[in-house]
Amino acid sequence: MLALRVDKRGLAVKDIDLPERNDEALVRVTLSGICNTDLEIARGYAGFKGTIGHEFVGIVEAAPENSLVGQRVVGEINAGCGECELCRGSDPRHCPKRTVLGIVGRDGAHAEFLKLPVANLLPVPDNIADEHAVFAEPLAAAFGIMERAAVTKDKRVAVIGDGKLGLLCAQAVALTGAEVLLIGKHAEKLRIAARRGIETATVKQAVKRKNEFDVVVEASGSAAAFSMALDLLRARGVLVLKSTFEGTTEINAARLVVDEISVVGSRCGRFPPAIALLRSGAIDVDSLISEEHPLSKGVLAMERAGKKGILKVFLRP
Amino acid sequence: MLALRVDKRGLAVKDIDLPERNDEALVRVTLSGICNTDLEIARGYAGFKGTIGHEFVGIVEAAPENSLVGQRVVGEINAGCGECELCRGSDPRHCPKRTVLGIVGRDGAHAEFLKLPVANLLPVPDNIADEHAVFAEPLAAAFGIMERAAVTKDKRVAVIGDGKLGLLCAQAVALTGAEVLLIGKHAEKLRIAARRGIETATVKQAVKRKNEFDVVVEASGSAAAFSMALDLLRARGVLVLKSTFEGTTEINAARLVVDEISVVGSRCGRFPPAIALLRSGAIDVDSLISEEHPLSKGVLAMERAGKKGILKVFLRP
Repeated sequence: MLALRVDKRGLAVKDIDLPERNDEALVRVTLSGICNTDLEIARGYAGFKGTIGHEFVGIVEAAPENSLVGQRVVGEINAGCGECELCRGSDPRHCPKRTVLGIVGRDGAHAEFLKLPVANLLPVPDNIADEHAVFAEPLAAAFGIMERAAVTKDKRVAVIGDGKLGLLCAQAVALTGAEVLLIGKHAEKLRIAARRGIETATVKQAVKRKNEFDVVVEASGSAAAFSMALDLLRARGVLVLKSTFEGTTEINAARLVVDEISVVGSRCGRFPPAIALLRSGAIDVDSLISEEHPLSKGVLAMERAGKKGILKVFLRP
Repeated sequence: MLALRVDKRGLAVKDIDLPERNDEALVRVTLSGICNTDLEIARGYAGFKGTIGHEFVGIVEAAPENSLVGQRVVGEINAGCGECELCRGSDPRHCPKRTVLGIVGRDGAHAEFLKLPVANLLPVPDNIADEHAVFAEPLAAAFGIMERAAVTKDKRVAVIGDGKLGLLCAQAVALTGAEVLLIGKHAEKLRIAARRGIETATVKQAVKRKNEFDVVVEASGSAAAFSMALDLLRARGVLVLKSTFEGTTEINAARLVVDEISVVGSRCGRFPPAIALLRSGAIDVDSLISEEHPLSKGVLAMERAGKKGILKVFLRP
């Protein structure tokens, strides 16, 4: 089968064997989405080698005990050991022995087929198109913000970054009723949020709004955003970090102490609420779709996904 | 009166006028304690110029409406505007217009006299010696940890730093019933905690205990401790930053995201619980006292306070 892989020589589409893992379901991928994390992995982040990709929708072709066969599914990307306290509590997202689809120790979704444990798969309701269902993973991640910071309708929240992640985060946070400001650099992208009734600002406009926000979400993937985020926060405010990127960020730790700021990392969320929202149409994902390429053109698609102004790029096997 | 002051030419004991602020209480300082923040301020931290010092005990000599006159008092160091939402809620610690004794816009405690609003002063019970009462401020700050992180008896907490702040933090946290490990470099100082039944480890021993702790308190004032703290924390653990120091720290932000770590700053605490504990003898502060110098030798005392192995240094006006 074809798969978009990272190895020590770089990124390439290769013809490889079907994944092993015979105790897991075999999913024929019908569509996958390129995430900025894929771009970071191709640059060396997480030291991953193998098939990249973790946003997908597909059809179950085979599974232990035939469960789910023939069903259209999306899949939670963390596969736990099944035995630790976290896994027994049905939350393998932080299982220390976990593998993560296309990120840690497990081949990913930019391929004709993938494997995942049956427990990771969730059926997709018929009225959600493939092009929407593929957003289940990043939308769940956006909702993960609310697991990490108390966002209620009396709160003021700024989201930094008008890329696809920032646009999903802003929409997800706005559904809580909180007052949301999306901060970005691209008029075109800010308009997507504005159409949903979300206030927007350019970076230049936003820097004047010092100490106004209870929560700031960093979704730009830029180390420089950290210091801007601190300026926007009120004392005892919460900075939620959503982007993963290679390298280090310089922080003024005294600033965190004096203003008693909390900086909280946020990674994966839960799929069921994301699926429910995609079904209801409460989140605009159509405006986030930029391009689709055949899987065989995966390297080109990754280049395109890294270009300015491009939002979600799909790969179709 | 004599006062230990920082100005553009450095640190010196000077003979200056009594502080103004006629709407505030005049306190004759009987003893003050040197904090590491004083040392940082003398190096340029916070850009403060004036009389330094914020840990003190003294006698009220004069006050509006004669309230408290003749009483022995300690004092909360943040003086708010009295009008904002925070001040009206009796918590001026984050009032945006606040002054802070010996740190921000207000002359401090290493002096023969200081002024503070009457509302900031708390009477000291008779059975607390001056040498103990002067620890009210740093002990309150140590208890501030529990305002910022959920520390309960089922939690495992590591405190990094066996200086005077770390020793107070370890003792304060241990009173919650949580399992506490104090990590330091000095056998002599670690023994102070061990005598209180607190487990101790050298840095070398502690680095092996990866992902063991729910909460790690950084009280060493060293930027390098940040990365060690992340290693010690479990996923979704909380790093509490207690030290203020000049300069920046490099952090691996992706690490915070992937393991969903929270980094929370913690500065000042509440005085009443600290006073109650000093009264009950539940906290060993005697072992933290290293030296006492007359105020006139303030510059020497500051030098001594910066030396390895030295814990609390007092100044007596």
